[in-house]
Amino acid sequence: MVDLQDRPDLLVVNGTVLTMDEHGTVIQNGAVAVSGDSIRSVGPAEKFNIKGAARIIDANGGIIMPGLINTHTHAAMTCFRGLADDMDLMTWLNEYIFPAEARLSHERVYTGAMLACAEMMLSGTTCFADMYLFEDAVAQAAARAGMRAVAGEVLYDFDSPNYGSIDKGFDYTLELIDRWRNDPLITIAVEPHSPYLCAPDLLRRAAAISEEHEIPMIVHVAETAGEAEQIRKTHGKSPVAHLADIGVLSPRFLACHCVAVSQEDIDLLRAHDVKVSHNPESNMKLASGIAPVPAMQAAGLCVALGTDGPTSNNNLDMFMEMDAAAKIHKVSQMDPTVMDAGTVLRMATIDAASALGLGNVTGSVEPGKKADIIVIDTHKPHLTPMYNICSHLVYAAGGADVQHVVINGVPVVDDGRLVSFDAEAVMEQMEQIAAEIRGLHDWTAKRANTGAKAGKE
Amino acid sequence: MVDLQDRPDLLVVNGTVLTMDEHGTVIQNGAVAVSGDSIRSVGPAEKFNIKGAARIIDANGGIIMPGLINTHTHAAMTCFRGLADDMDLMTWLNEYIFPAEARLSHERVYTGAMLACAEMMLSGTTCFADMYLFEDAVAQAAARAGMRAVAGEVLYDFDSPNYGSIDKGFDYTLELIDRWRNDPLITIAVEPHSPYLCAPDLLRRAAAISEEHEIPMIVHVAETAGEAEQIRKTHGKSPVAHLADIGVLSPRFLACHCVAVSQEDIDLLRAHDVKVSHNPESNMKLASGIAPVPAMQAAGLCVALGTDGPTSNNNLDMFMEMDAAAKIHKVSQMDPTVMDAGTVLRMATIDAASALGLGNVTGSVEPGKKADIIVIDTHKPHLTPMYNICSHLVYAAGGADVQHVVINGVPVVDDGRLVSFDAEAVMEQMEQIAAEIRGLHDWTAKRANTGAKAGKE
Repeated sequence: MVDLQDRPDLLVVNGTVLTMDEHGTVIQNGAVAVSGDSIRSVGPAEKFNIKGAARIIDANGGIIMPGLINTHTHAAMTCFRGLADDMDLMTWLNEYIFPAEARLSHERVYTGAMLACAEMMLSGTTCFADMYLFEDAVAQAAARAGMRAVAGEVLYDFDSPNYGSIDKGFDYTLELIDRWRNDPLITIAVEPHSPYLCAPDLLRRAAAISEEHEIPMIVHVAETAGEAEQIRKTHGKSPVAHLADIGVLSPRFLACHCVAVSQEDIDLLRAHDVKVSHNPESNMKLASGIAPVPAMQAAGLCVALGTDGPTSNNNLDMFMEMDAAAKIHKVSQMDPTVMDAGTVLRMATIDAASALGLGNVTGSVEPGKKADIIVIDTHKPHLTPMYNICSHLVYAAGGADVQHVVINGVPVVDDGRLVSFDAEAVMEQMEQIAAEIRGLHDWTAKRANTGAKAGKE
Repeated sequence: MVDLQDRPDLLVVNGTVLTMDEHGTVIQNGAVAVSGDSIRSVGPAEKFNIKGAARIIDANGGIIMPGLINTHTHAAMTCFRGLADDMDLMTWLNEYIFPAEARLSHERVYTGAMLACAEMMLSGTTCFADMYLFEDAVAQAAARAGMRAVAGEVLYDFDSPNYGSIDKGFDYTLELIDRWRNDPLITIAVEPHSPYLCAPDLLRRAAAISEEHEIPMIVHVAETAGEAEQIRKTHGKSPVAHLADIGVLSPRFLACHCVAVSQEDIDLLRAHDVKVSHNPESNMKLASGIAPVPAMQAAGLCVALGTDGPTSNNNLDMFMEMDAAAKIHKVSQMDPTVMDAGTVLRMATIDAASALGLGNVTGSVEPGKKADIIVIDTHKPHLTPMYNICSHLVYAAGGADVQHVVINGVPVVDDGRLVSFDAEAVMEQMEQIAAEIRGLHDWTAKRANTGAKAGKE
């Protein structure tokens, strides 16, 4: 028997444990013991003394697995989800999003991020990487919600509605790093928006901060062919080659999207051990294109999944993202063997943890890692029978099948209900924000009709 | 006040009614009155006398809309969901599916179809069109479950594990037509598998039955380029041109998939007023290709959505199918304005009803139509706030957000629970079938290793 000496704080029992460890270990009728914030042991149920645990989570014959990790989002954009869709990107940005964002505040971003945390936790995501304005509010929201997060203030050449000029943006970032340095859940990243909105100097300052503080640098890279073309005109090379040229690529660099990349770009990313966040649903919805992920993986790149923000997806459900990732590359390559379910699951768990520099912290159910664990209820018509766990998780399950969520050892979703904070109160606050945004849009529409332009352009 | 004279059997209140009528009518704080199996009136809540109704369904501020219609599936393949994925089509068919199907029976198909009905009803589908073996069992299951269905026995040139030779297959189809003629929920269709598995004579006999009995003819058409090439070799023309040439196309013809079709094929389909069932998730997962749906719609074709069977999707959730349909064509056309949410919703409701010859029966919430109504619970983090109903339904909601389902006037899902039959008992029966299939697969794997082949080839 394991754990007879020392009573675990939490024991997750009566399920198939999908560890996502490097051997692909799956334990039928397994259990996971948690002490404090960490996983203490994982193994067959008979090795554990159930009566010895302070608290038991019964998986009821379901799946016990690492929490899903969303490597790219703009969580607080829950404020604007569904405000405008099915339109040209510039119309969407200039007439809807930028005018609304110009009126954001710390408080609104906090509410939007809390709402996003509720959605993510309820659908089995235990960690997310965020880029937005007023990012201290996002870090506060994640900490309050009990979610693991990598948070970074978006930086660009022009003034921000939060910090003002770029020098203040770097100050804000350094303050974030200082403030959250020892937090058990929050990691700060430095996040220049993209090579098309950030001059080489800005990108080099960001890279220096990433190196000095050993934190991730998260950047939108080559999301569209148009953007790649713009960089090519300005700098004479592809976005990836430009970033390599100015010396900012590193193993801590997380490149989001990477849709418009060539094999040479992929080789360059690999040479610098850059990590990639793949956001297929957003790339499809915005008609950005299809990132060459099978080629990236063949080259040995670490590619993780992300939803992108809730205005371009429009949900934060990583199960739907896995399903889309598995399918879009099959049809794109005309090969049904591409992007099998196991590969996709790694992109949403262990590879995602590695992409965020958290490979030793989360992303798999292994002793010594932080206890970020979810339980899937498979006793449902659409998951019966179960021949193959990975297939069910990627192709048949959804976020609503998540029954329990533990983050950093703390149960935050219990039997499908969020228990770490009052989601009802957040939803009420969001309704007030939405009422103002609806009014703003009437104003924006009138303004747009005059031919005036708003926002960043 | 409406309905003061005659007490309605059911009143659905306190929600936004998305009627899907030809004017796109949306009624804020609306209500729907049902008498017997039919919708009697639809309008603003204040026009109804709530106290007068025998039964009330409270939508709790959510969305009241027509049930979703799945125009193409093989429901009983729930028996095999996840048995094999991410592999070459011929390996999948020959080593897994055909050997398992060879052991099907009326009883197993009934259990598989009951399980599919549970999944479909719980996720807001009120009507489905099915093609499979032992289809009388599917019709029985749908009738027992309380679902509307269009059911047809699959016909092909070789012998069937159900009926034997093709003559018996036509006898079986005629018996189905006779047996279910006056059923309130079941419509029988004649369903030759495809032009590549059915000789012209078979297809002509089927078309004659479709015409004589005024029932749908449902056929797989041009699902893959390989299949189109095979028809071209055999018949010297495209599958669509071949079908037109032998005189089987008609307004009652529902062509499933239509991936490998040219503009000439589309024009030919339009000329015969053929209906199309679009199955994007299956086409992506099997790497079949992307059907040119925007071109079909531009030509004026009626295109509806379907999931295809649960082995090639792998769920029967029409919300996920809507999301995939909206996104795949945007990225395929590199145009975010293509396939807007409203268009996709029509493909899953009113256009789907028309595609099945049920345009006067179901597919919209209008007086005189059968009461096939679903209620979506929007009081959830991922659906708050709600700026646009259509956007939320297509891009953010999932089957698990369905709270109530009424089919033919009968509440079958109440507050998220299936109430029309015992899904637990069906799941238990399915576990027994699965145990046998797992054993069979061990046998199949051994057999495959010897180089022997199984099934239809």
